Amino acid sequence: MVIIGIDPGLRITGFGVAHLNGTRVQLLDCGYLRLQQMKPISDRIGMFYDFLDAKVTQWSVQEIALETPFLGKNAQNFLKLGYLRGVSHLVACKRSLSIAEFAPCEVKRAVTGFGGAQKDQVARVIMQLFPRLGKPSKDDVTDAIAVTLCGIFVQRQQKIIARR
Amino acid sequence: MVIIGIDPGLRITGFGVAHLNGTRVQLLDCGYLRLQQMKPISDRIGMFYDFLDAKVTQWSVQEIALETPFLGKNAQNFLKLGYLRGVSHLVACKRSLSIAEFAPCEVKRAVTGFGGAQKDQVARVIMQLFPRLGKPSKDDVTDAIAVTLCGIFVQRQQKIIARR
Repeated sequence: MVIIGIDPGLRITGFGVAHLNGTRVQLLDCGYLRLQQMKPISDRIGMFYDFLDAKVTQWSVQEIALETPFLGKNAQNFLKLGYLRGVSHLVACKRSLSIAEFAPCEVKRAVTGFGGAQKDQVARVIMQLFPRLGKPSKDDVTDAIAVTLCGIFVQRQQKIIARR
Repeated sequence: MVIIGIDPGLRITGFGVAHLNGTRVQLLDCGYLRLQQMKPISDRIGMFYDFLDAKVTQWSVQEIALETPFLGKNAQNFLKLGYLRGVSHLVACKRSLSIAEFAPCEVKRAVTGFGGAQKDQVARVIMQLFPRLGKPSKDDVTDAIAVTLCGIFVQRQQKIIARR
């Protein structure tokens, strides 16, 4: 099972690709896509689609994992968070992938064991799990890896339950 | 100039296609796409993409017009309104179209002359402008035609200003 977790944004999109091999988790790829703010939104959305589609093909991804955002101060910015989520659903449809959305507390609980964990606690656990990773240059990358792991852990639990 | 105006929704998407010929507006097509609520969101988004893309090709559309929604009671539903808007931007990118977003008051003002007009006033003006249309079976259709007209009127104004 290969899962891509993404933290989509119209400026920076973090991503992590992981593989569940038996009960072992292997991080295959991670990083971020930077979209130039000077470009029109349509162009940025087109670049995001092509990027996600290419990653899905490159790693034979079977599931996309996303974190559900919460409403902040600006409603129109919140609406725009839906843009790339919609496009992620389109990639899932065109490539026959499943898509899973997780609340922020589910992601934090999956990674640290505590749903109210801070951002840097989540990042620390990820760096302990994957010591070769080093400190990613962007929070968006650790956030995306956290979502990927959450998707992987849910898959693993389902497998264990299925075996019983 | 051919414009498609859409009122995108994960249940019903109204659309209207109109053509600006000199200063005359011609309504080429209108109607709605119904998406089955039983289907997964990804499938519905895929159907919406294919539908919009086919309409754009059918009528050689050059611009997509959208109404900007306002935050209602449910933030997660509001986020989902962004899904199909993001996918509309993707169609615009892939087909090299421009995309225009209008606030609800701009749409109402363009059609009725009054930004605070009621939904049924907008519908009445549209039925007067296009008497052959009859009463559309869904509000979503008149809403979409109103957005189309708003896009057309803005284009017409720009043409008139350019000529001066």
